[in-house]
Amino acid sequence: MFNIVLVSPRIPQNTGSIGRMCFNAGFTLHIVKPIVFDLEEKKLKRAGLDYWNRLNPIIWESLDEFLQENIKYKDRFFFATTKSNKPYFKVQFQRDDFLFFGSESFGLPQDLMQLNWENAITIPMKAYGRSLNLATSVGIVTYEALRQNFSFFTH
Amino acid sequence: MFNIVLVSPRIPQNTGSIGRMCFNAGFTLHIVKPIVFDLEEKKLKRAGLDYWNRLNPIIWESLDEFLQENIKYKDRFFFATTKSNKPYFKVQFQRDDFLFFGSESFGLPQDLMQLNWENAITIPMKAYGRSLNLATSVGIVTYEALRQNFSFFTH
Repeated sequence: MFNIVLVSPRIPQNTGSIGRMCFNAGFTLHIVKPIVFDLEEKKLKRAGLDYWNRLNPIIWESLDEFLQENIKYKDRFFFATTKSNKPYFKVQFQRDDFLFFGSESFGLPQDLMQLNWENAITIPMKAYGRSLNLATSVGIVTYEALRQNFSFFTH
Repeated sequence: MFNIVLVSPRIPQNTGSIGRMCFNAGFTLHIVKPIVFDLEEKKLKRAGLDYWNRLNPIIWESLDEFLQENIKYKDRFFFATTKSNKPYFKVQFQRDDFLFFGSESFGLPQDLMQLNWENAITIPMKAYGRSLNLATSVGIVTYEALRQNFSFFTH
């Protein structure tokens, strides 16, 4: 339905929770290395519950490797970032879109977002707000994409 | 803007992440006891980052205490539950609504939901799907409420 792309996530529990959501909602999870934890780590599996083992995420050895294969879809790349002012619900998502999320510490690489800056989106917060938990952010953006495409989801 | 009501949450990291979101988005967080962890616990504060200490959640000693004070708003109570078939984005949220979420293990008490079963809502998943992480669920539902009321949020 949608492709969730985690670029160098750092906190295994978040990746586990996101995997749980991807399994339950039927999204494809891509994990782009380098990553600082082991994909077999207990903390990840605990957060992913029994869903993690049934998920089969697609693992990419590097962003270059990912792009080599998927750059042809770049018009449908969307980048979640605190650096954009465009609310995520102001764009029109389609089936098979790629939704990118960066690491908990550093966000997405600027070079990557420049591939299609038009599609850099953000989750609105109060003026003093800074950022949300990664798994929460992925849920918010992806389920808006699902909401917009609900007729496809249910069939 | 909105009232997020966590009824007997069990995992401190989830409450921390939800607190972080509530602070950043300007939502009011209610925590209804009994709870099995300490609100000063390290795991909670680590997930809440520095936001947790600035949040001032409203703590209720019991569901009875909460209801005594707030039952008058029950038409605006919304209950997130896997037991409903109504997608959360099919209802119309308003400012100051109360969005209820139950414990990670048991969900919301049936008696509570019967106060306004009409407003029991669910996050759609695939047929084989069962449930999402609590913090992720709270983000998904609450930001849909925010999306619907965005003109109020920005002013």
